[in-house]
Amino acid sequence: MDNEQLAPKLVVDKMYNNDPFSKWLGIKRIEDGAGKSVLQLTVRQEMLNGFGIAHGGITYSLADSALAFAANGHGRMSVSVETSISHTEQVKEGDILTTLVEEMSLSNKIGIYHITIRNQHDQTVALFKGTVYRTSKKW
Amino acid sequence: MDNEQLAPKLVVDKMYNNDPFSKWLGIKRIEDGAGKSVLQLTVRQEMLNGFGIAHGGITYSLADSALAFAANGHGRMSVSVETSISHTEQVKEGDILTTLVEEMSLSNKIGIYHITIRNQHDQTVALFKGTVYRTSKKW
Amino acid sequence: MDNEQLAPKLVVDKMYNNDPFSKWLGIKRIEDGAGKSVLQLTVRQEMLNGFGIAHGGITYSLADSALAFAANGHGRMSVSVETSISHTEQVKEGDILTTLVEEMSLSNKIGIYHITIRNQHDQTVALFKGTVYRTSKKW
Amino acid sequence: MDNEQLAPKLVVDKMYNNDPFSKWLGIKRIEDGAGKSVLQLTVRQEMLNGFGIAHGGITYSLADSALAFAANGHGRMSVSVETSISHTEQVKEGDILTTLVEEMSLSNKIGIYHITIRNQHDQTVALFKGTVYRTSKKW
Repeated sequence: MDNEQLAPKLVVDKMYNNDPFSKWLGIKRIEDGAGKSVLQLTVRQEMLNGFGIAHGGITYSLADSALAFAANGHGRMSVSVETSISHTEQVKEGDILTTLVEEMSLSNKIGIYHITIRNQHDQTVALFKGTVYRTSKKW
Repeated sequence: MDNEQLAPKLVVDKMYNNDPFSKWLGIKRIEDGAGKSVLQLTVRQEMLNGFGIAHGGITYSLADSALAFAANGHGRMSVSVETSISHTEQVKEGDILTTLVEEMSLSNKIGIYHITIRNQHDQTVALFKGTVYRTSKKW
Repeated sequence: MDNEQLAPKLVVDKMYNNDPFSKWLGIKRIEDGAGKSVLQLTVRQEMLNGFGIAHGGITYSLADSALAFAANGHGRMSVSVETSISHTEQVKEGDILTTLVEEMSLSNKIGIYHITIRNQHDQTVALFKGTVYRTSKKW
Repeated sequence: MDNEQLAPKLVVDKMYNNDPFSKWLGIKRIEDGAGKSVLQLTVRQEMLNGFGIAHGGITYSLADSALAFAANGHGRMSVSVETSISHTEQVKEGDILTTLVEEMSLSNKIGIYHITIRNQHDQTVALFKGTVYRTSKKW
C-alpha cells in the first residue's frame, strides 16, 4: 500500500456506481474493505427458477460481486481467473442473503478467497471460492 | 431409460415454463436433449457491471441453466452439487452467447458436464464445469 | 447414526490398513473422527519435483486421504466426486504438513469439505475443497 | 515466441531431469509441446489405496505433471494457481494411464487447460482442469 492508492470504499464506489446489474440485483453494501466485502441481497420473485427457488446464478452473482469488491479493495485492479460454487441449501423468495468473505491467500500476483453466503436464519446456502489475478495497475 | 420417462423437450418445457429468471435473462432454447442443451442469450445493458462488460453472473447463469436442462433431459431429477467457471474473454452489450454442452461422464448417481460459452464471433468467453447428483425420482 | 455403524477410528483403520500408497507417503493419523481427520506427513527427497520443491501431487494426496477418512468416518461409504486444490506456498524437503478438515455442509447424499494444509511454521501451503457422494452402504 | 526461448522439449528436459517424484511415478514422456504433453504411467501395487484401487493422488499427480510440462512448454515459467479433478472410473493395478491435454485458453498472464486421463481401454478415468499464471521469466 502507498498513499496514492484509493481507500477501499472509494474503489468500490467506482466499481458499484453505474453498475446496472448490481442495481438490478438490489445489492446493498454493508461493509467495504481491503480483502473484505459484506453485501446483502433480498431474493425477489423474478430471481426464481422453474422450481420456485432462486436460480443458482443469483447466489453466484452476489458472491462474484463480493469477490470483485474485496479483491479490488486492496487498491490494485484485480480480475477473476477461476471461481467455483456449491449450492448447499435452497434459497426462497424473500430470503435475505449476506456474504462473508475470507481472504485465504494473498501473494503479489494471486489472491484466493472463500465466500460463504448465509440466509437470514444464519444457514449457509452457498460456498464460493474465487481466485483473482492482481494486475500492477492501481485504482 | 424406460417408456415412462418424459422426452427431454417435455422435461425442459416443465423447467423453463414459469421460470422468471430465465425469462428475465431472455434465454432462448435452440436445442434440447438428453445430456445436451443449446441455449442463447443476447447481452443487454442492464446485465453489465461497472466496467461496462457483462457481470460474471450472466455467463454463469446461462451455463447453469444449460447444465440443469442437459442433466434433467435424461428424465431423472438431477441437482447441481458443484460448479466452476472461468471467464476467458470480455462480454459486451449486444453480444450473442451460445452454450455448447459436453457430457463428460454419466454414472448412475453422478453426471459431469463441460459447458463452453461462445460469442457471435465463435470466441470462447467462458469455460464451465458442472457436477450433478442424479436422484432416482423421474420427471 | 445407529448402533450398527462402526466408530470413526475403526472405519479409518479398515481404510488405512493395507493402504500401500498412504504408507509410502508416510502418513500418520493424529486424530480420526466423524467429519474430521488430522493427518501428518514429512516431505522426503523422493517427493520433490524438478524445482526442488514438493510435487503438487503430494499435498493433493495428503488432502485427498484426509477427505476420505473424514467423510467415511460418519460410518457410510462415501466417494469423492469433485476435488480442487490451490498450492499457495512452496513445500520443501523436511517440511511437516498437517491437515485441518472443516465439514462445510453435510446432507443425506452430499458432503462438502474444506481442507487446509499447514506446514510446521503454521503457514497455509494448500487449500483443498472436496465434495463426496454418500452411498447408503454402511461400513 | 522469439528465438531466445527454449524449444518445448528442452524446457521439459530441464523440468523432468532430476525430478525424483516423476521418476518414482514412472512417468514416460510420449510427446512434448507448447501447450501439449502426452505422459504415460503404469499403475503399480504401491500406488493403491485400502480399496485396492489407485489412490486419487496418482491420477492427480500425472495430470499435474502434464499441466506443468504443457504450460511451460511455451517457454515462459508458469505456475499452477488452481486445479481440480474428478475421478470418474476406478483405476487398477497394471492399468496404463495416458494424458490428453487441451489448451482451452491462453492469454498473456493466464492459461487454462483441460486434461483427460484415459486407461488402456480408452475409458476416461479422470477429468482435470488446471489454471496457470504465466510469469514473464523465460526458460
